[in-house]
Amino acid sequence: MTGKFIVIEGLEGAGKTTAINTVARILNQYHICDLQFTREPGGTPIAEALRNLIKNGLDDEPLTDKAELLMLYAARIQLIDNVIKPALNAGKWVIGDRHDLSTQAYQGGGRQLDKVFIATLKEQVLGNFKPDLTLYLDIEPQIGLMRARERGELDRIEQQSLLFFERIRQRYLELANQDETIFTIDASKSISQVTMQIEQILTTWLTQQVTNV
Amino acid sequence: MTGKFIVIEGLEGAGKTTAINTVARILNQYHICDLQFTREPGGTPIAEALRNLIKNGLDDEPLTDKAELLMLYAARIQLIDNVIKPALNAGKWVIGDRHDLSTQAYQGGGRQLDKVFIATLKEQVLGNFKPDLTLYLDIEPQIGLMRARERGELDRIEQQSLLFFERIRQRYLELANQDETIFTIDASKSISQVTMQIEQILTTWLTQQVTNV
Ligand SMILES: Nc1ncnc2c1ncn2[C@@H]1O[C@H](COP(=O)(O)OP(=O)(O)OP(=O)(O)O)[C@@H](O)[C@H]1O
Ligand SMILES: Nc1ncnc2c1ncn2[C@@H]1O[C@H](COP(=O)(O)OP(=O)(O)OP(=O)(O)O)[C@@H](O)[C@H]1O
Ligand SMILES: [Mg+2]
Ligand SMILES: [Mg+2]
Repeated sequence: MTGKFIVIEGLEGAGKTTAINTVARILNQYHICDLQFTREPGGTPIAEALRNLIKNGLDDEPLTDKAELLMLYAARIQLIDNVIKPALNAGKWVIGDRHDLSTQAYQGGGRQLDKVFIATLKEQVLGNFKPDLTLYLDIEPQIGLMRARERGELDRIEQQSLLFFERIRQRYLELANQDETIFTIDASKSISQVTMQIEQILTTWLTQQVTNV
Repeated sequence: MTGKFIVIEGLEGAGKTTAINTVARILNQYHICDLQFTREPGGTPIAEALRNLIKNGLDDEPLTDKAELLMLYAARIQLIDNVIKPALNAGKWVIGDRHDLSTQAYQGGGRQLDKVFIATLKEQVLGNFKPDLTLYLDIEPQIGLMRARERGELDRIEQQSLLFFERIRQRYLELANQDETIFTIDASKSISQVTMQIEQILTTWLTQQVTNV
C-alpha cells in the first residue's frame, strides 16, 4: 500500500510549521508513524542549492521572475522524483511544508507571471502528480508577517510589499475554492483553535480514506 | 546603435572555441572591437552556479531531464537579462559559445524531451530574443569526441552515447535548415579550411548588415 501526501500551505507566519506538528501528532494517533517531512523549495541536495539561490541570490545579481519560476519547478521535480515518490511507494506518508500551490499563489498571484505558462509548466513537469490533501492556512498578510518577523530577518521574498502578499492570498483562496482536496483553515485564530480546525478536517478525511479503501 | 549577437554552436570538440577566436579576429578587422564573450550555460554568478549543478550534479543526486531543461532556461534568461541585452544596448557585439540551439539539440534531440514543451519554454522565457547570426559547426560525433578527448579509441560508454550525439547532430541539422540566420559549416575539415568557411560567411553577412542599415 502506498502512503499519502499531505501538504500544508499558507503565507509566511500563517502557522505552517506549527500545523505540521499537529498533523504529525494526529497521524501518530492513527498509528501512521512512518512519516517523511519535506519542505519546498528544497528537500534534496540540488533542490536545497536552488532554494539558496532563490532565497538569497548570489553576488547581488538580480534574479529574474522567470528564472525563479523555472528554478522552483526544477527543485520540485527533483524532490518528487528523488524523495516524495520513493517515500510514498515505500508506504510512508509525506507531509509537505509547501508544494505546487505556493508557486501558483506566489509566482502566479504575487509576481503575476502568465497563468497559462505556469499551468503548462505544472502539467509538463508534474504530470498527474498532486497532493492527496492540502491544508491551506488562510491569514491576513499583516498578521502573518508580524508573527514571522518575531523570528528575525526577512528574506528576499518576505521583503515584498503587503499588496504582493494580498495578491498571493487572493490566489490561494481562489484555487482552494476550485479544488476539493484543498481545505481552508482560518489561521488568524489562536493556536488551540487552529489546532481544533486541523483535527476536525484531518480526522474526517482520514475516516473517508479508510471507507474508500 | 545596438550591437549584434553572434552564436557559435556544435557538438563537443567541433571547434567552437577555435571558431570564436576566428570570429573575434574578423570583427576586429572590421573595427568592431568592443566585444563581449559569453558561454552557456553560465556567464553570470547565478548561471554559473546552475552550470555547475548541471555539469557536476551534487552528492550523487540524479538530475532529472526536466530539472536540467528548466535550469538551462533559468541560466539563459539570467544571462540574457543581466549580460547580453545590456551589452547589446551599450553597442557591444556579443559572441556566444552556445545558446538556445544547444537546448533544442541536446534536450530535444538528445534527451528526446517533448518538443512542444521545449518550444513553449523558449517562447515564454525568451520571447522574440534570438541571435542575429549563428554558425553551426557540423561534425560527426566520433570526430568531435576524439578531438575533445585527444585520443583514438572511444570506450564502451562513449560508444553507447554515440547514438545520443547522433540524435543531437540530426536535430542541429534539421533546425539549421529551417532558419536562415543559422549557417552550417563543415567542421570535419582542417582548421584552416574551417577558418576560411567562417571568413567567407561572416564577411558576406557583415557586408549585408552594412547594406541593410
Ligand atoms: N494561530 C497562531 N496564533 C498566534 N501565533 C501563532 C499561531 N500559529 C503560529 N504562531 C506563531 O507564529 C510564528 C510563526 O509560526 P510558524 O513558524 O508555524 O509559521 P510558518 O507558516 O511556518 O512561517 P514560515 O512561512 O515563515 O515558515 C511562530 O512564533 C508561532 O509560534
Ligand atoms: N578543424 C579542426 N581540425 C582538427 N582539430 C581541430 C579543429 N578545430 C579544432 N580542433 C582541435 O580540437 C580540439 C577541440 O577544439 P575546440 O576546443 O575549439 O572545440 P569546442 O567545440 O570548443 O569543444 P568543447 O565543446 O569541448 O568546448 C582542440 O584541440 C582544437 O585545437
Ligand atoms: Mg515554517
Ligand atoms: Mg569550447
